Amino acid sequence: MRLLATHPNLELKVATAESQAGTMVADLYPALAAAYPDRVYDSVDIDRLDGLDLVFCALPHGLSQDVVAQLLGRVGHIVDLGSDFRLDDPSLYDQWYGEPHRHPALLERSVYGLPELFRSSLQGAELIAATGCNAAAAILALAPLIRAGLIEPTGLIANIATGVSGAGRPPKPTNTFGFLADNVTPYGLLTHRHTPEIEQALTADAGVPTSVLFTPHLVPMNRGILATCYGQPAADGSADSGEAMAAMRDAYQSEPFVVLSDTPPQTKATLGANTVHITARVDPRTGMVMAIAALDNLMKGASGMAVQNANLALGIPETTGLPLIGVSP
Amino acid sequence: MRLLATHPNLELKVATAESQAGTMVADLYPALAAAYPDRVYDSVDIDRLDGLDLVFCALPHGLSQDVVAQLLGRVGHIVDLGSDFRLDDPSLYDQWYGEPHRHPALLERSVYGLPELFRSSLQGAELIAATGCNAAAAILALAPLIRAGLIEPTGLIANIATGVSGAGRPPKPTNTFGFLADNVTPYGLLTHRHTPEIEQALTADAGVPTSVLFTPHLVPMNRGILATCYGQPAADGSADSGEAMAAMRDAYQSEPFVVLSDTPPQTKATLGANTVHITARVDPRTGMVMAIAALDNLMKGASGMAVQNANLALGIPETTGLPLIGVSP
Amino acid sequence: MRLLATHPNLELKVATAESQAGTMVADLYPALAAAYPDRVYDSVDIDRLDGLDLVFCALPHGLSQDVVAQLLGRVGHIVDLGSDFRLDDPSLYDQWYGEPHRHPALLERSVYGLPELFRSSLQGAELIAATGCNAAAAILALAPLIRAGLIEPTGLIANIATGVSGAGRPPKPTNTFGFLADNVTPYGLLTHRHTPEIEQALTADAGVPTSVLFTPHLVPMNRGILATCYGQPAADGSADSGEAMAAMRDAYQSEPFVVLSDTPPQTKATLGANTVHITARVDPRTGMVMAIAALDNLMKGASGMAVQNANLALGIPETTGLPLIGVSP
Amino acid sequence: MRLLATHPNLELKVATAESQAGTMVADLYPALAAAYPDRVYDSVDIDRLDGLDLVFCALPHGLSQDVVAQLLGRVGHIVDLGSDFRLDDPSLYDQWYGEPHRHPALLERSVYGLPELFRSSLQGAELIAATGCNAAAAILALAPLIRAGLIEPTGLIANIATGVSGAGRPPKPTNTFGFLADNVTPYGLLTHRHTPEIEQALTADAGVPTSVLFTPHLVPMNRGILATCYGQPAADGSADSGEAMAAMRDAYQSEPFVVLSDTPPQTKATLGANTVHITARVDPRTGMVMAIAALDNLMKGASGMAVQNANLALGIPETTGLPLIGVSP
Repeated sequence: MRLLATHPNLELKVATAESQAGTMVADLYPALAAAYPDRVYDSVDIDRLDGLDLVFCALPHGLSQDVVAQLLGRVGHIVDLGSDFRLDDPSLYDQWYGEPHRHPALLERSVYGLPELFRSSLQGAELIAATGCNAAAAILALAPLIRAGLIEPTGLIANIATGVSGAGRPPKPTNTFGFLADNVTPYGLLTHRHTPEIEQALTADAGVPTSVLFTPHLVPMNRGILATCYGQPAADGSADSGEAMAAMRDAYQSEPFVVLSDTPPQTKATLGANTVHITARVDPRTGMVMAIAALDNLMKGASGMAVQNANLALGIPETTGLPLIGVSP
Repeated sequence: MRLLATHPNLELKVATAESQAGTMVADLYPALAAAYPDRVYDSVDIDRLDGLDLVFCALPHGLSQDVVAQLLGRVGHIVDLGSDFRLDDPSLYDQWYGEPHRHPALLERSVYGLPELFRSSLQGAELIAATGCNAAAAILALAPLIRAGLIEPTGLIANIATGVSGAGRPPKPTNTFGFLADNVTPYGLLTHRHTPEIEQALTADAGVPTSVLFTPHLVPMNRGILATCYGQPAADGSADSGEAMAAMRDAYQSEPFVVLSDTPPQTKATLGANTVHITARVDPRTGMVMAIAALDNLMKGASGMAVQNANLALGIPETTGLPLIGVSP
Repeated sequence: MRLLATHPNLELKVATAESQAGTMVADLYPALAAAYPDRVYDSVDIDRLDGLDLVFCALPHGLSQDVVAQLLGRVGHIVDLGSDFRLDDPSLYDQWYGEPHRHPALLERSVYGLPELFRSSLQGAELIAATGCNAAAAILALAPLIRAGLIEPTGLIANIATGVSGAGRPPKPTNTFGFLADNVTPYGLLTHRHTPEIEQALTADAGVPTSVLFTPHLVPMNRGILATCYGQPAADGSADSGEAMAAMRDAYQSEPFVVLSDTPPQTKATLGANTVHITARVDPRTGMVMAIAALDNLMKGASGMAVQNANLALGIPETTGLPLIGVSP
Repeated sequence: MRLLATHPNLELKVATAESQAGTMVADLYPALAAAYPDRVYDSVDIDRLDGLDLVFCALPHGLSQDVVAQLLGRVGHIVDLGSDFRLDDPSLYDQWYGEPHRHPALLERSVYGLPELFRSSLQGAELIAATGCNAAAAILALAPLIRAGLIEPTGLIANIATGVSGAGRPPKPTNTFGFLADNVTPYGLLTHRHTPEIEQALTADAGVPTSVLFTPHLVPMNRGILATCYGQPAADGSADSGEAMAAMRDAYQSEPFVVLSDTPPQTKATLGANTVHITARVDPRTGMVMAIAALDNLMKGASGMAVQNANLALGIPETTGLPLIGVSP
């Protein structure tokens, strides 16, 4: 809603909510009060959405399946921020989410919403599954190195520090201030559901099978993801940091939202913006190759990515309405 | 620079720096890299500023006096974010800043930059002294209550919690993370230099002498000010919270950047936006009257306020280029 | 449990829990794992507590009434950390807690647990109502000034910044990291339940009626309370900061847990310790008098205060087992 | 000084400082005021230290070399918290610290202060180089896995999130609140000086050459280190998480300061305590092996470790004066 308030081509027609239907937007999110002083959250009613040019869908996994199935054909485009339509293979959904997908036939109609890798398929797309926050950081860090043949495509490591907002708004023991402040907490060891999404995108991009061990850690900040990724050297291991950065430039030099730098990226530099900052290194001592990406998990990792996808779907210039500069300090 | 990058009527021509002259903007502030990829900070050279439509000046007290004296007449307008031109009475400057003002004659040429109280005098103004962060919060909270005759104009209390960014960027023992995290620290007891500015504005607005005890406290966050202000009841003390809120509405109901609410304001609701959130109460038990204002000290308390003043000086619509919605959570 | 693990005279016999009965202590609080590797929380069973020398009771208001009524006479001493036995007047309980006290006759058997003011009545006491966190800070700051005749006893202001842990462990919308980080939030305006407790203690100490407007603010840190208190000058208003500090020394110079200083106190200096740091000022401009107290709301404001009371009840030297130094930075 | 205040066998005789000589301890560290109300920091004067039973030395690298050289033989024992005496091989010092060691002959007289791996050599030792914070976490996580033959000893990865206090107290651009809050920042890529120390200890323990890529990240908290370490599977890669945990138990089951758990460790569980919490996993999908260790960088990573070493040097029971429970939340 923050991004839509200043997007010159998109107008917010309906904002729905489940438990908060009937609540004033300004009461639930005082930050939105000045721009939406009188708006009230509507209840979810598919008929009310009929004929809209585009619907953003941001629901827990399992819930957007049915909503999207009902909306297809009745609205122009759908950008789903959830994870229900990200995996191409229904059996992977079953394996990682612990339940069968209820609309497996729709999976092949959805496009994976990562413009930097899959832009052409997103232009005009009807159903887009926007990339998850951790996945966006890990894929953007690793893909150029695999593509350039600098690292082995399997046994990759994505070690991620993530802000808290990715865990959602409802209170629970693991998102209280008492638990999170002054704390670093790894979670989802070996089993985080963004793993197959990372492997799928890297494999699609590189054309070879890939495998990743992804380990997320909660750190005491609201927004931001830092993905520190490692790969074993491919071939003779003689590559150096210059070649790793060259691979990044080959991949991203004309990307409006990617900032490449020899300086290690910081999450704070992306706060509130749709940018991703990336660097890469080759360790001459151990031969290991590393790439680090920073982004705002609620922007390039969620809403900003969704608007970028929406722009592509609607044929609007891709950067429209998306901040390049965040709030700092 | 963040605000100017998207302001439709203002174009950044020169960005100067003292110790950082010659540094890449993107190196010093990676958050600005995507919008200013190649820009370098210029050294301070008055001649280079000659003929500019408007100059923002953000220098420590004592330093902007000479710069402004040189710029007047050579540029169209000056908005000074520092404190050198805020006090009308040179002897007050001497008393609170511990040294005489070097250009006392210029004090009467400057206008105090608080549009919600002094808008008409700001339209087209040549020299504007933008309101300080703490002062903006305290003045906006207290002025309507004095004006409405609900509180005594003297013996006022402004108890303020402030984020750390107001203390500036250079490292010092009191702005390290080790000192500030998990800490609340009062400072400047009885002597903070925003005090005379608050009294001057309240007196000018109400037409009666006022006095304020202002106590700032550092709290562990980067941005945000919460001013909790108290006054003793005027007259018979029979007013209630409804009358206090009515006084606020009388003052601010058509102000684009003021959000009034019965709910206590939170600093987070203003982060990155140019808004101020305000509420008021009368305590039926003790008779005391309170008003609370929240704002972002770098926006409505600094850069946002400066752009609002610049818009007024230049005859641009006042809200141009100023975010109404901040970054939350 | 942290304090008991190293207290030389107290041995933890039973640790009970409601919803967490049966849970390993080490699972719920990994910080306790090394000292309590195998202990499991017991369910609440009054019979299991029979004959204990002392019971600490830490329950939400309304719940400890019945438990204490059952325990009295069956255990040696009870130190209640909750608020059920703090107010002497049952009608005040009704007024502020919104429901009648179910054991009003017990109120006169309980002693208010603030040793610095009421030590003699605590020695050997059977039932102690340990002082609440905000109340401890406000009372310790204001009492000496009233006692010395430096301020009017009514219309007092206690403006408090408090860490988050005082709100308890269960997750709720107002204690998530997303809500609290980078935020200052006033709450309980005019109605916070520690108010009558503050007034009762100040009145008992000074022998004159007192009234206080108490305004708490959540700040983004886990532990710590900073009470910035204001009073209007009594008599001729000619007192100065030296006299205010002298009043503090008269009250506290031999208190082991009170640190007096001309430097403003910081909450961080008390983190994990049972100390309270205090300063005072008289503003020569407005005549207003202020006192500032800092303490750790879980130590001097809760568990530390409870152990201090327990030591007094049991005839153990008062400082036994209580840290004088906290964890810093 | 916090730990010494309650250590039953150690008495603080002299506390020296460089730039702060002559400063009241209570002024520089208000947290220490209640325990050290009148103590003043002495200037560094070797003669004043003559004959002391033990000296703790906490100086930047390069500075303790000469001090230790002067003290040896004049005091009973020295525990150096700095890095000057950690490396056995003078050429490694030259390579990583960029300057030759001035007393290379002393390197073989110092013992590496990590009791869990090298206890017997520490008992009664004259000169102990206490393990660095990052190194302690990485070594304790990885050593048992190498020893058990579960991972390849080379190409190891230690990805570390660290609190800010490890960077020292003096203000600098990278330890301000404005830089660190809401931020995750990798630093020292490929070149952090704890690297050779980790390799040296792992090699000494395992008896085979090892190599590590160590990447530290600053996270917004004062204290705490979380080391997430990865190794490639040795031999046939058929090991599982149970075997990895069994290797940990073999190594640490009787260690008083090591807490093993299947639950991922959190830094907060160690805040203020001398404990280290460890878990391990084998990923059945990629075959990669991981171990995670959490500790307080100022306790088990600095002062606590130093006192543990001092206890061993002096023949005092090893756990004396060392908290098992930290401050939480």
